[in-house]
Amino acid sequence: MEERAQPRRRGRPRGANRDDTKARILAAAAAEFGEHGYEGASIRSIARRAGVDPSLVHHYFDDKAALVAEVVAVPLRPDRIVASALEGPVDELGERLLRGVLTAWDSPAVRPAATAALRSAIGQGPVARMLHEFLRREIMHRLASRLGDHADAELRAELAASQVVGVIMVRYILAFEPLASLSHDEIVSRVAPAVQWHLTGTGPVLDTAVRPAKNSAHDE
Amino acid sequence: MEERAQPRRRGRPRGANRDDTKARILAAAAAEFGEHGYEGASIRSIARRAGVDPSLVHHYFDDKAALVAEVVAVPLRPDRIVASALEGPVDELGERLLRGVLTAWDSPAVRPAATAALRSAIGQGPVARMLHEFLRREIMHRLASRLGDHADAELRAELAASQVVGVIMVRYILAFEPLASLSHDEIVSRVAPAVQWHLTGTGPVLDTAVRPAKNSAHDE
Repeated sequence: MEERAQPRRRGRPRGANRDDTKARILAAAAAEFGEHGYEGASIRSIARRAGVDPSLVHHYFDDKAALVAEVVAVPLRPDRIVASALEGPVDELGERLLRGVLTAWDSPAVRPAATAALRSAIGQGPVARMLHEFLRREIMHRLASRLGDHADAELRAELAASQVVGVIMVRYILAFEPLASLSHDEIVSRVAPAVQWHLTGTGPVLDTAVRPAKNSAHDE
Repeated sequence: MEERAQPRRRGRPRGANRDDTKARILAAAAAEFGEHGYEGASIRSIARRAGVDPSLVHHYFDDKAALVAEVVAVPLRPDRIVASALEGPVDELGERLLRGVLTAWDSPAVRPAATAALRSAIGQGPVARMLHEFLRREIMHRLASRLGDHADAELRAELAASQVVGVIMVRYILAFEPLASLSHDEIVSRVAPAVQWHLTGTGPVLDTAVRPAKNSAHDE
């Protein structure tokens, strides 16, 4: 963990060691997210429930997104994948997004936990609600903002996400072959153009090297 | 139900009425699918477990796919959606597939049960295993066959499916707006070109009317 200015420890339980405090905050975060959802919970309300000062929460966790990752026990940060993909030209955003997701999911440390978290997100109940709000706020909104002020930026972000989510489902959850064993480069060459097309309506979709022989052409 | 030649009733339990027999067959099918999976179970093994003649199973259910739909209690037949989409030119297969899925899912009689079935399919256990095999055999293989003898027909079918599955996830499961409320026509105009591109590498992807202003163009 990075060194930081020492936070006030006013609210810290006496005699508790570092791990105890962190676990206490996490338990409080899980309870707050469960009761109030991702948006309804705040660092302040989590600190209050844990009986610590809000600055102590910030000492251990950068933000709410970091708390979500710890609460669902997934060392995967979709918000960071998106933030990282957003750096760079919009014309290649589709590829960067897809590559970031593939790289993260294919890490052996991540895959089982990420699969479990996705299954939770698909179900119902407090965890599903929290992850739903988290995805909407930290992924969809950010992606849409980067697409500028198109009236349909939100929709474009969702359609791009739908293609990425679909690849996750077929590759990691259903594990259909050959997709489950394909290299990242192959997947990117096949799928990134579709993601990019959703995002900006541009890209090398018709110029790709993987274009097969076709029976007839609608495109001139 | 269509009239057919009267099957032999040798194995039919005496005194049981039509509903009893059907329920008995369904219970046997659920047990067989659970123990042996979709591919491992057969009409014959289901009949044997139910204590009826195989012809009686065929009297009530067209095929294994029909039994799956009844076992998971979903009045949705993905195998029929695909079969129906496969009729007609391959150049418009993407649109027919997407439209078929949207029309089926948006039926109020289908949506809750289909959502529950998808959640089961994503989980683990016998139901997940059965649905996984069912999807692979009845959807992926059929779709790939229609794409001809491209070496990568299986992969193309999976990538097309990934886009369709992704739309299901974002529209029906996560229910993100605006996608959750979009009309079928709007979704088709946005998504079918990507599905079609996965299938055949052709289509009006760059000629679409929804193409927004772009910052720069990679396509000449």
